[in-house]
Amino acid sequence: MTELNPHFSHLACTFCGAQYPKDHLINLCPHDQRPVQAVYDTTGIQATQWYHPERKDLWRFAGLLPMASGFTSHGEGYTPLLDHSSHALAKKHGFQLFIKDEGKGHKDFGQNPTLSFKDRGMAVVINMAKHFGVAKLAVPTQGNAGDSLAFYANEMGIGAVVIMPDDTPAPIQGNVAALAFHNPDIKLEMIKGTIKEAGLLMKEKYLPQGYFNVATFQEPGWRIEGKKTMGLELAEPNRLSEQWALPNVILYPTGGGTGILGMWKAFDELEAMGMIDSQRPKIIAVQSAATPPVKNAIDKDLFEPEPTPAGETLAVGLNVAGGVGHFKVVDIVRQSGGTSIAISEADIAKHLSEIWQDKHWWVCPEGAACLAALKPLIDMNMIKPKDQVVVFNTGSFEKYLPEVRHLL
Amino acid sequence: MTELNPHFSHLACTFCGAQYPKDHLINLCPHDQRPVQAVYDTTGIQATQWYHPERKDLWRFAGLLPMASGFTSHGEGYTPLLDHSSHALAKKHGFQLFIKDEGKGHKDFGQNPTLSFKDRGMAVVINMAKHFGVAKLAVPTQGNAGDSLAFYANEMGIGAVVIMPDDTPAPIQGNVAALAFHNPDIKLEMIKGTIKEAGLLMKEKYLPQGYFNVATFQEPGWRIEGKKTMGLELAEPNRLSEQWALPNVILYPTGGGTGILGMWKAFDELEAMGMIDSQRPKIIAVQSAATPPVKNAIDKDLFEPEPTPAGETLAVGLNVAGGVGHFKVVDIVRQSGGTSIAISEADIAKHLSEIWQDKHWWVCPEGAACLAALKPLIDMNMIKPKDQVVVFNTGSFEKYLPEVRHLL
Repeated sequence: MTELNPHFSHLACTFCGAQYPKDHLINLCPHDQRPVQAVYDTTGIQATQWYHPERKDLWRFAGLLPMASGFTSHGEGYTPLLDHSSHALAKKHGFQLFIKDEGKGHKDFGQNPTLSFKDRGMAVVINMAKHFGVAKLAVPTQGNAGDSLAFYANEMGIGAVVIMPDDTPAPIQGNVAALAFHNPDIKLEMIKGTIKEAGLLMKEKYLPQGYFNVATFQEPGWRIEGKKTMGLELAEPNRLSEQWALPNVILYPTGGGTGILGMWKAFDELEAMGMIDSQRPKIIAVQSAATPPVKNAIDKDLFEPEPTPAGETLAVGLNVAGGVGHFKVVDIVRQSGGTSIAISEADIAKHLSEIWQDKHWWVCPEGAACLAALKPLIDMNMIKPKDQVVVFNTGSFEKYLPEVRHLL
Repeated sequence: MTELNPHFSHLACTFCGAQYPKDHLINLCPHDQRPVQAVYDTTGIQATQWYHPERKDLWRFAGLLPMASGFTSHGEGYTPLLDHSSHALAKKHGFQLFIKDEGKGHKDFGQNPTLSFKDRGMAVVINMAKHFGVAKLAVPTQGNAGDSLAFYANEMGIGAVVIMPDDTPAPIQGNVAALAFHNPDIKLEMIKGTIKEAGLLMKEKYLPQGYFNVATFQEPGWRIEGKKTMGLELAEPNRLSEQWALPNVILYPTGGGTGILGMWKAFDELEAMGMIDSQRPKIIAVQSAATPPVKNAIDKDLFEPEPTPAGETLAVGLNVAGGVGHFKVVDIVRQSGGTSIAISEADIAKHLSEIWQDKHWWVCPEGAACLAALKPLIDMNMIKPKDQVVVFNTGSFEKYLPEVRHLL
């Protein structure tokens, strides 16, 4: 029997702070149409066995998640942190470089079942949906989130519709189509356009049929909670340090930016529980030069990023023209002393190719964009000697075949 | 407008020699239930412009195919022949080693559109089906042939049902499911069991509905004609030699064995046209130790191989317990002075891993089995110093992900 975490206190809007009961199935804050997130009684949690380091999945942090017991795991999370300090720039400038590899399993770690970080959010989504008896979920997606939702929905016997652009990489299309083919409760809609057009179709066609909207930030904070575990895994002992500790710089490929909100929330909660101090890593929102709304907002010092037209990029996960959480991403980047960098297609391709030749690591185009950002960040003095720098590789390049094969 | 090759004379049974008109849409020979194949007036062809070396697909040999003009190409065939003479055994024993890579494109060559040798046969199947106005095709498959048929059927607007085991690698399932999802004329049936059970379901359920059977050897020799082009590509000038010439040894991963019949036929036709002499390569039928009916028949000196129970192997394409063309495979292997070798799962894995580490080549498990066969063949004196040895890699490992990823 699933059970909500007794220390999960309530939902609160990320902007106006309006509070809602934790069993209130809302989407955006009804007051201001901003995302909501879960709020915990961290003092209460501190006194519990909230941390389960013996588990090899993200549920090792169950006490700090909305569902502390009775959940179903598919092995998601607890991904390896690969030491890449042999990288030429790291050696030259004397910093430590790590890749948090969301695309790959390892015998001593967990494995995201659909080979991307989207599984973290969707694992929480599907357990919460099951708990609340939600029968049908809808998601507009650039690809990986749809692959993930279809997987979990199929596993857990919940209905789902995935709406994605018809230029989504073949393995992702294929995975969802295969589930849709076998399971009449899983639907796939391919559309011309980007995630924006997918979102419009969801609203016009599926929400009126009773599908519950689990687009990024449009569910009750579930996906933030899942993504939060990336921050917890960086912070926990025996990763970057023997103690609970944070790196100096985090490079995060930013489409919608849920991971940035999630990790920042993780750090705040750890601080509230006395595990870490108030020092925070610089957060670097890495974008594609094809679609850089967050970068533009940082450059122009805007509070509310302006949607840019979607471009064309191999890093499809970065092709998010306007996100309802972008205001918060920009806010966190600023608070952290970080910045946003936009990477060209040529540089994405070059770095995907280089790390492949160098290490045989299955880095996706979005992860490659982060590696490409190292040089400009050094030039801007954002990365300093002795820093611990973490680059997020959000998925396996396997999911982008055959588009990336010529780069290998 | 498609048109049959005017020098395509008739169909003949591969065993009893019974002849049938070339526009006779038959399956196995009605007389003895053996495969039929196309017979050409090679003297007539000799006088024509049958060879089109300017084309970068298998239709460069259109004059020696059942359809000499009006066909539709999707770029299949004309795959690269990779020089692998740096292989430790080749260096030690002084032979030349090549890999005929059916899984990979190259800018100077063609590319099988679904990344496997099955596209050669299916390209002919689909053009012939179109010519004869066949509306619906059925294939039982271990995977790649179904992927290929679904691709071509979708492209050419012909109906198809693909029946395959439910343990087929995910990318193959996904590809077919994606086409089936979008195109109501493409059907996918997943079954428990192997290609044998798939064949039974096809006969019980689909042939009575008017589907035309294009299982290996059960169509009117179309797939042999397509596979024949592998032999023509080895023989043509500027591959192994500046002249038309054959290698000394061919290692071919043998499931059903269509490629062996096809290549042998190619060599006979080239000889009849005076392009090569009567010397033939040793043909080595490489099998999986899990399912070795051809090897058993060679060892026991049987005319008619006995079906062995299907086993479990990473090289799913080799998991063919009993093939209607196996008697002919055994016959050709014997005539050629070659043999059959069965490779263990451990050796398949080891060699897939080794060539990946060594060269970054995307060799499939079936191709890896052939590399594993080199050592025993040297020990048997089947491979001699100065020999030109060709190993067939029948597809990209990309189609076997994620099952092979841990080996890379």
